[in-house]
Amino acid sequence: MEQRTELSTIGEFGLINRIAAKFPITQPETMKGIGDDAAVIDAKGKKVVVSTDLLIEGVHFDLIYTPLLHLGYKAVAVNVSDIAAMNAIPKQITVSLGLSNRFSVEAIEELYEGMRLACEAYQIDLIGGDTSSSRSGLVISVTALGLGEEATLAYRNKAQANDIICVTGDLGAAYLGLQALEREKQVFLANPAMQPELQDKDYVVGRQLKPEARMDIIHELNALSIVPTAMIDVSDGLASELLHICQQSNIGGVIFEDKIPIDDQTYLTATEMNLSPMTAALNGGEDYELLFTVQQSDYEKIKNMTDVSIIGYMTHDVELAHLMMKSGSLVKLTAPGYVHF
Amino acid sequence: MEQRTELSTIGEFGLINRIAAKFPITQPETMKGIGDDAAVIDAKGKKVVVSTDLLIEGVHFDLIYTPLLHLGYKAVAVNVSDIAAMNAIPKQITVSLGLSNRFSVEAIEELYEGMRLACEAYQIDLIGGDTSSSRSGLVISVTALGLGEEATLAYRNKAQANDIICVTGDLGAAYLGLQALEREKQVFLANPAMQPELQDKDYVVGRQLKPEARMDIIHELNALSIVPTAMIDVSDGLASELLHICQQSNIGGVIFEDKIPIDDQTYLTATEMNLSPMTAALNGGEDYELLFTVQQSDYEKIKNMTDVSIIGYMTHDVELAHLMMKSGSLVKLTAPGYVHF
Repeated sequence: MEQRTELSTIGEFGLINRIAAKFPITQPETMKGIGDDAAVIDAKGKKVVVSTDLLIEGVHFDLIYTPLLHLGYKAVAVNVSDIAAMNAIPKQITVSLGLSNRFSVEAIEELYEGMRLACEAYQIDLIGGDTSSSRSGLVISVTALGLGEEATLAYRNKAQANDIICVTGDLGAAYLGLQALEREKQVFLANPAMQPELQDKDYVVGRQLKPEARMDIIHELNALSIVPTAMIDVSDGLASELLHICQQSNIGGVIFEDKIPIDDQTYLTATEMNLSPMTAALNGGEDYELLFTVQQSDYEKIKNMTDVSIIGYMTHDVELAHLMMKSGSLVKLTAPGYVHF
Repeated sequence: MEQRTELSTIGEFGLINRIAAKFPITQPETMKGIGDDAAVIDAKGKKVVVSTDLLIEGVHFDLIYTPLLHLGYKAVAVNVSDIAAMNAIPKQITVSLGLSNRFSVEAIEELYEGMRLACEAYQIDLIGGDTSSSRSGLVISVTALGLGEEATLAYRNKAQANDIICVTGDLGAAYLGLQALEREKQVFLANPAMQPELQDKDYVVGRQLKPEARMDIIHELNALSIVPTAMIDVSDGLASELLHICQQSNIGGVIFEDKIPIDDQTYLTATEMNLSPMTAALNGGEDYELLFTVQQSDYEKIKNMTDVSIIGYMTHDVELAHLMMKSGSLVKLTAPGYVHF
């Protein structure tokens, strides 16, 4: 039988001590981590980049099918993804948790173990946070800090007409993974004896439960001396993100349906579930890939990158994004996006 | 009749745009605020100080007696207090909110107006955040960033034996304000026609609902060239905070009962409610005053500061804090503190 230690037996300070012991400082930029009124960072002459996300049970995640280890990893990865989208290097995170007493110490440690694995993978320090009880569900608030050089930070508003539009990895999988998990949840709720049918959904489910921030791409771009003119991470779907770049750069963009990278399992899962794989790619969200624009002069370098697809180019249109269909017709993109309310 | 606009009518992006319009960038260190994947800060060669707090309805605040304007102000002030306790200057905050649909746009704007007033008072920029729905109560996560010089940052672990122990303002009022509000809440719940009896509780109630971070003291210490050897803000009660300094500095401390600053209204309220004013000061919490230690050589400067009380001195004891009673007996301090679980 699994051990269950009640949170009340170790208290808040006990929990903080247990966590602190598992998160030693590893980055030279971290001068002070957990244990004082605030953490202290040495920016070493670089610019500091800050992003924050709030994850609430029942809104952003469902513990019925989300293992705490993966949830911890994802909570860190999605924040690191925002730092990556600035073309910066993540260095630290703070994590605040609201916990109901249905969580045992072991469950909380599982959540932190996922965070620790992410800290290890992205080479960042957990430097502080806050823990308290929550009357209802689990609440996770993560703030990520990174460093970047002023000249190479990538904003959303610096794309130029004729710039090449690129996207990393493939799109739509995380959305279909979520649909598959939701379907299995309904089956399970109707009949708890049923075994989940997710054997051929490993990729899409993995994309939903354990996304990775594309720091590999950031390091590769840096090694190739490519500075994106604009960059954003794909959290709300390709259409919404491209529109952000168009609106903030005050220009247009056109992307090509047959260039949009979609994995085979995404196609198969979409077909099986009677969903459109293209809609999943355009509006699905949670892929955490990077959408970025580069100058035409970077074309030769970009085309050799293995996990980057060239999907279109920026235009002189004002704040309009279009999709060129395989059929040859041009469709105006809109962003229903992800409505959080 | 008050206007009530449903959040769903303006959506997440609509809300973000409304908020961003009210929080223009004012600090030269803020390079990019709301509107990109992350905010960007120029540390200007200083060290970056980071603190975060999570406030959950029903745990940290009760909306029955907490006006949203004050709640917004307090959420910022308590984070600024942590930056102050590092002897640093606050510069930016990020704010994430989890909102249930019982909140109208007007209510959310009232909350942000409180934050805006605090940003104005402490001269800081709101540079980012995240908003989403919450299945249950209101969730507020604030991260504060500040800047400090490496040589003058005040940690908890650098107090020395014989250092003078100082505290700002007065203690225990916030706790008694909370007790008074809780009592009125019970009266109100029993009979909603009853008028609240808080006429003579303005000070203690104000200390609970609208605490201030003591940035005035930080500026004054700086002007007097006093660098505290250790500093902490009083959020969990004087005893708990003094013990943190003793433990982290690996020495002892003794404070004198008759030197602990307690306001007259705190005494009167405590007496009326049959509570001990000294217990409120030692273990009450939420005063957000500064507890700090200075070298003996700073005594002449410190004693002329109008809102600083000298309450004791650090000793060679190891990790032990004592209270010298008026009676002459020495009592070992313990920290029941504030148990969040």
